[in-house]
Amino acid sequence: RGKGSKEKIILNIGGVRYETYSSTLRTFPGTKLCSLTEPHAPSIYDYDPTTKEFFFDRSAEIFSYVLNYYRTKHFHCPTDTCRSVLEEELAFWEINETQLSSCCWLKLNNKEVQPEEFNIWDENEQTDDQCLIVQTERRDFSWRTRWQPKIWSIFEKPFSSFSAKCLALVSLLFIIGIVIIFCEETKAQFEFFTANFTSSGYSELSHNDHDHYYHQAAYLLHLELLCVLWFTFEFSVRFCFCPDKKLFFQNPLNVVDFLSLFPVYIELFVAGRIQRMPSLGLWLGFVRVVYLLKLLKISKLIETPLILRVLSYTLKSILREICILLMILAFETLFFGSLFFYGELLGSHPSYTGELHVADILVCFWWALITLTTVGYGDIIPLTTFGQVTAALAAVFGMLTITIPIPIFLVKFKSYYDIAIFKQKLKRSKKP
Amino acid sequence: RGKGSKEKIILNIGGVRYETYSSTLRTFPGTKLCSLTEPHAPSIYDYDPTTKEFFFDRSAEIFSYVLNYYRTKHFHCPTDTCRSVLEEELAFWEINETQLSSCCWLKLNNKEVQPEEFNIWDENEQTDDQCLIVQTERRDFSWRTRWQPKIWSIFEKPFSSFSAKCLALVSLLFIIGIVIIFCEETKAQFEFFTANFTSSGYSELSHNDHDHYYHQAAYLLHLELLCVLWFTFEFSVRFCFCPDKKLFFQNPLNVVDFLSLFPVYIELFVAGRIQRMPSLGLWLGFVRVVYLLKLLKISKLIETPLILRVLSYTLKSILREICILLMILAFETLFFGSLFFYGELLGSHPSYTGELHVADILVCFWWALITLTTVGYGDIIPLTTFGQVTAALAAVFGMLTITIPIPIFLVKFKSYYDIAIFKQKLKRSKKP
Amino acid sequence: RGKGSKEKIILNIGGVRYETYSSTLRTFPGTKLCSLTEPHAPSIYDYDPTTKEFFFDRSAEIFSYVLNYYRTKHFHCPTDTCRSVLEEELAFWEINETQLSSCCWLKLNNKEVQPEEFNIWDENEQTDDQCLIVQTERRDFSWRTRWQPKIWSIFEKPFSSFSAKCLALVSLLFIIGIVIIFCEETKAQFEFFTANFTSSGYSELSHNDHDHYYHQAAYLLHLELLCVLWFTFEFSVRFCFCPDKKLFFQNPLNVVDFLSLFPVYIELFVAGRIQRMPSLGLWLGFVRVVYLLKLLKISKLIETPLILRVLSYTLKSILREICILLMILAFETLFFGSLFFYGELLGSHPSYTGELHVADILVCFWWALITLTTVGYGDIIPLTTFGQVTAALAAVFGMLTITIPIPIFLVKFKSYYDIAIFKQKLKRSKKP
Amino acid sequence: RGKGSKEKIILNIGGVRYETYSSTLRTFPGTKLCSLTEPHAPSIYDYDPTTKEFFFDRSAEIFSYVLNYYRTKHFHCPTDTCRSVLEEELAFWEINETQLSSCCWLKLNNKEVQPEEFNIWDENEQTDDQCLIVQTERRDFSWRTRWQPKIWSIFEKPFSSFSAKCLALVSLLFIIGIVIIFCEETKAQFEFFTANFTSSGYSELSHNDHDHYYHQAAYLLHLELLCVLWFTFEFSVRFCFCPDKKLFFQNPLNVVDFLSLFPVYIELFVAGRIQRMPSLGLWLGFVRVVYLLKLLKISKLIETPLILRVLSYTLKSILREICILLMILAFETLFFGSLFFYGELLGSHPSYTGELHVADILVCFWWALITLTTVGYGDIIPLTTFGQVTAALAAVFGMLTITIPIPIFLVKFKSYYDIAIFKQKLKRSKKP
Repeated sequence: RGKGSKEKIILNIGGVRYETYSSTLRTFPGTKLCSLTEPHAPSIYDYDPTTKEFFFDRSAEIFSYVLNYYRTKHFHCPTDTCRSVLEEELAFWEINETQLSSCCWLKLNNKEVQPEEFNIWDENEQTDDQCLIVQTERRDFSWRTRWQPKIWSIFEKPFSSFSAKCLALVSLLFIIGIVIIFCEETKAQFEFFTANFTSSGYSELSHNDHDHYYHQAAYLLHLELLCVLWFTFEFSVRFCFCPDKKLFFQNPLNVVDFLSLFPVYIELFVAGRIQRMPSLGLWLGFVRVVYLLKLLKISKLIETPLILRVLSYTLKSILREICILLMILAFETLFFGSLFFYGELLGSHPSYTGELHVADILVCFWWALITLTTVGYGDIIPLTTFGQVTAALAAVFGMLTITIPIPIFLVKFKSYYDIAIFKQKLKRSKKP
Repeated sequence: RGKGSKEKIILNIGGVRYETYSSTLRTFPGTKLCSLTEPHAPSIYDYDPTTKEFFFDRSAEIFSYVLNYYRTKHFHCPTDTCRSVLEEELAFWEINETQLSSCCWLKLNNKEVQPEEFNIWDENEQTDDQCLIVQTERRDFSWRTRWQPKIWSIFEKPFSSFSAKCLALVSLLFIIGIVIIFCEETKAQFEFFTANFTSSGYSELSHNDHDHYYHQAAYLLHLELLCVLWFTFEFSVRFCFCPDKKLFFQNPLNVVDFLSLFPVYIELFVAGRIQRMPSLGLWLGFVRVVYLLKLLKISKLIETPLILRVLSYTLKSILREICILLMILAFETLFFGSLFFYGELLGSHPSYTGELHVADILVCFWWALITLTTVGYGDIIPLTTFGQVTAALAAVFGMLTITIPIPIFLVKFKSYYDIAIFKQKLKRSKKP
Repeated sequence: RGKGSKEKIILNIGGVRYETYSSTLRTFPGTKLCSLTEPHAPSIYDYDPTTKEFFFDRSAEIFSYVLNYYRTKHFHCPTDTCRSVLEEELAFWEINETQLSSCCWLKLNNKEVQPEEFNIWDENEQTDDQCLIVQTERRDFSWRTRWQPKIWSIFEKPFSSFSAKCLALVSLLFIIGIVIIFCEETKAQFEFFTANFTSSGYSELSHNDHDHYYHQAAYLLHLELLCVLWFTFEFSVRFCFCPDKKLFFQNPLNVVDFLSLFPVYIELFVAGRIQRMPSLGLWLGFVRVVYLLKLLKISKLIETPLILRVLSYTLKSILREICILLMILAFETLFFGSLFFYGELLGSHPSYTGELHVADILVCFWWALITLTTVGYGDIIPLTTFGQVTAALAAVFGMLTITIPIPIFLVKFKSYYDIAIFKQKLKRSKKP
Repeated sequence: RGKGSKEKIILNIGGVRYETYSSTLRTFPGTKLCSLTEPHAPSIYDYDPTTKEFFFDRSAEIFSYVLNYYRTKHFHCPTDTCRSVLEEELAFWEINETQLSSCCWLKLNNKEVQPEEFNIWDENEQTDDQCLIVQTERRDFSWRTRWQPKIWSIFEKPFSSFSAKCLALVSLLFIIGIVIIFCEETKAQFEFFTANFTSSGYSELSHNDHDHYYHQAAYLLHLELLCVLWFTFEFSVRFCFCPDKKLFFQNPLNVVDFLSLFPVYIELFVAGRIQRMPSLGLWLGFVRVVYLLKLLKISKLIETPLILRVLSYTLKSILREICILLMILAFETLFFGSLFFYGELLGSHPSYTGELHVADILVCFWWALITLTTVGYGDIIPLTTFGQVTAALAAVFGMLTITIPIPIFLVKFKSYYDIAIFKQKLKRSKKP
């Protein structure tokens, strides 16, 4: 021990031996390691006199960084350290977590997956199944209990059995059918509109035209009624056999199904009064747009790839951010629209004789939005230099506004996608 | 052993010594480490009485995390741990994999590159070569066997030899030639159309015009015939000498080559009948669009950068997602188109006298798509407030729909690009 | 020591023993490790003759890489090594940092978070509170000191108390009110414009129309005055009770508040002169656009999600880059506009009789910007082939220019987002 | 050695002891580790009979993975392992690199920064300085050698001295001046065009108008001449004092400077002949567009942020990919243009009487490009259903084509940005 007569301390951290000078440990007084240098330390801590080691039953990995903290006075941590691990070790060694050097802040692994995030990717089939099992356990005594799960799965899970596939196909054909009928009916609607609302409207002739309308559209109405009868049947069965009525109506697709039953029944009910209130006929046509929403049910009939499920989940999670961005867009619309209005007024010559095309500020708002989204119909065009400068600014701002949601979207999507991929592989590896 | 009289156990894991209290190991009863604390353990496991160590011939790295699990009751793992490694070690130590703390889930390295993904980046030349070798081995007895690989590589691999380069150049010139001829012919086609289909059509004069058409286009037809004769020769040779006829027709480019032979021969065949069926002439012009598809062959003549090969592979792999996104776009088109139709009908004044420009719902669908893609021609423009609100919604939805495929594209592209870059470097380092 | 008679040296680096041949350490003469092989080394360094070890109280982790540097002559470092750590260790071992192998350059962790970046995410409420405390300490002797913090927080922190919420709601209603009033006034403005500036303008009739304008708009002016009186009251109170007058006017929202007080007072002041200077009426309408900017105050009334705070911070940090990109866009506008102008002039036929629509180069610049941003109104369209080629180039360049800011935006956003998420989790974990 | 009588082998790898069974090492016969189990191993390798250890002076880190390979038969490697390190160690242990498990392929660190990539970010000032030094060393004997570096840095480095800043400001003013003059001259050009090329052109009157043109534009020409004289002086001095004439002309900005000297001199030279060749006047106007390119010199006068230097470097590096994408766009233009042409011809009714607006296939190509880039002027619009379907397809394909370059751009930009940031921090830390 001639040269280097400084006193050394040996620390056995879970079997790994560390050696350091006592002076090093005295760098931070008041911590557990510093107290080891005190004379009475051997009697407090687990000290082995034969090997002259202090034993601690702790992780050796983090301790090497703790010891370096005493040596260099800067506390660093290894890559991707779990925060909880670091906290526990630092608490044991009585070091303040805030001593962590700023270059290591981003190394801390905060990616604690929330259970709700993680479980969202489970097939809802599982939950359905459990739902049914609960159902079964509750009331095990009627024919309904025996048949309900089977009928429910025939109507709800198109891939579960052959009969379910057939039913899904029939349902799909009816949906496509009613969309085609809807498109055909618009022709009759347009004729009805021409007959009743144009210059010659409200004349005696219109009644004939109106009859003509029903004459022409009669076979369409019959076909539509046929489809709706099928939808009524399907909806009734699904409603009767659904395991939970409340959850059933929380699903927007079921609400659409319910609403799509009404238009044709109302039309039949008020058939006689349309002649007196022609606009009612148009409104009845308008509410049929709900038929198109039934197309969304096709998403249940095709197996959605994982990446699109993640996408829809991401969209849901950034809904609030998208709303705020739309509010920014709305503000830009108001602002540039107003600028444009006054720009066109102020910029036009005093001797200007023609009609101004921006007679209304609402038209300016419309123009501003069409410019901001870079659609640019060209129906309203700035005629003055001031208006052109406003339009140029609006176009550039619109271009920048489009790119704003992309990074938000990407960052969120990336993190959800990583979780989803992990979950999928976990599930796949468990199956065999 | 005065103070700290707790019993210690020394574990020698592949040469690395770990020390811990017996009480720590008893935390999780029923595991292998817990059984070491039992009195008969030395007789079961590899126990060295001199050093009082239990020896296990395992990885020391993962074991330090296993031991920490006994100490802290939370199981963490190091960064980028391979799942298979972790599973094997945990199976040995009889610990359930599901104990892994949720903050470490994403640390597991799941990036097991699928062999098919990895090998896709190989030059198809290699496979071709192997194909030829197989060919050679199979029937080693004719002149064809000797010449076939040479001729095949002259026609298929433009960079393989000087004669192949010359042939590729000639082929390229003929492709550019036929595209120019195609463009020139459209002028004659347009005159033919004006003569036959406009108001003065079907008159006696049209025959003269028609003759005029053939008169003017005669030299073009001869030039076209020359090109097609070359293509016929090229296709015949390539078809005769291709190693696998089935694979040959699975390549879309070869199908295009095959189809592009027909138009001019059919024209020559039916030349006399065009006077009687003028629309046939137009259809013959139309099918010549197939010549343009021959331009895709240029992609074989230039060396595609790695990044574009990755790009095309990415596009192929997300084809299904793109299709579903196009279905969403189609749905939006139908929905906004219908809303627009009824919006314009309902919003117009009862005393409206002019003609409505949305006479047809198909026109509305067309308008909706042009608005959703932010093209915005401006041929159909909402005239009512309701229609303008629909248009504004469509424009904003279109803007958002455009940004949706970007994250999917990016995430997939990034992962394929990483693999491709690794593969390329691997190959490059092997060459010298 | 029979075979392998090469002399070995044992190094005890903080308790971890490393062993190597003396010849290995002599690889790089002049370094500290090389000097250990010299005969007088034991007398200089901390040498233990019993174990024949040199002891160094340093990090063992980096040292293993240092020792490998002597063995392989290439210096590598572990993943995500903090630069400061590496520098300190290399300085101790007297190795030049530039020896680091190029493949490890990107492994160095440079992510030292700047304190200003890190603290930006703090709620400004905290700073406000501190501001108030300082205030309180300074002059503790008047009624103002007691009431000022309370009134200030009622007006500035809408979520702090019930009365603050009520005040925020009232304020919000007044803001929405004045925006609606602004929109309504544009109608009167438009009538005023039609009466004064069109062909029949400056006639005797216009005075009547003008009176008519004030007649019609009188109730609007009264409503506007009511709103502005409220804003005057609100602004006065906030100005009086703000802790720091200078900071108060550095906030653009307060400047907008201040400016929005003037239009209506000026209108009342100059009411009589508008008849003589009709354009003054339009200018007074124009400056009311400042009311719309008050809508930005809504951003204080809703809780902004973290991701949008990061977004706005990112936008601020890349403001300079965006400006330069806008300059590039401006250059492209000038360049393509000029090309288009001369293209249309040179390309038109000598016998061209109609009027050219590009009578002015400013119109061409306008066209170029509308094409570059892919708005494409279609009011100005190239009629010559040269002009069409210019337009095509402009469209393609515009398309590429749009994608340029995306990567800059993404890279910056990602890094700020990581910091923000870390900070948020840190704060959340401290609260309980 | 009672239980566990299997023979153990102790390996001392650079001071770290590993212990394993001989049977484990015999897993892969023919490797170096397997040969340790042979009886004559102690005489070949560095064997210490007292501690019964084989000593190898190698990295202990990789060896733990090598030993695990013998235990588990799968070879894994740690995160971000440098390829060269792994190769060297595996070569020493006589293991084939291809044994690496596929899950670890992407862990290999291939990011060897190419020296040319790394040095590109250096200020070119440095290279200039070195250039000058070389210059100085070569011919140290004239007044030119003494003054050349000073004058060169005054003209080329606007931030180097006060006189350089003044010169840069003067230069900037002249550039802005000539751009304004250029814009003003277009008015005279347009009058000249109206006088010479419209219906009344080539009449006797035009000569008067032409004189009028020169009369009006005379003061502009004088101002332009003044600017160009300054540019001539500046260019001459810079050319005379540039250190390398060849490098000087490789810089496109200098070529632009050179070309921008000609227009005004040519105009003065041919002034008399413009009356005889009016189109010459327009061409002389056209070539003045080169003045606008001088605006690019402003980029030298402002300090470009790092992120934009990275951006321009990225753009250069993916130039080839962008070209190929533009070729794809060109192909889509040809294809959709042709489809549109025939679609409109075939889809129009036989009794169609009006004029077709797609009289030419070039017009169709123009339409296709404007639709693909989503500009959508609306000058050419499909009138038939077939044409509308083509337009819809073109719009959707255009939308997808826009998103294709984004991932390429991002991936490249990210990697260059990482290098640039590292380099910048390295430089900054060296300065103090």
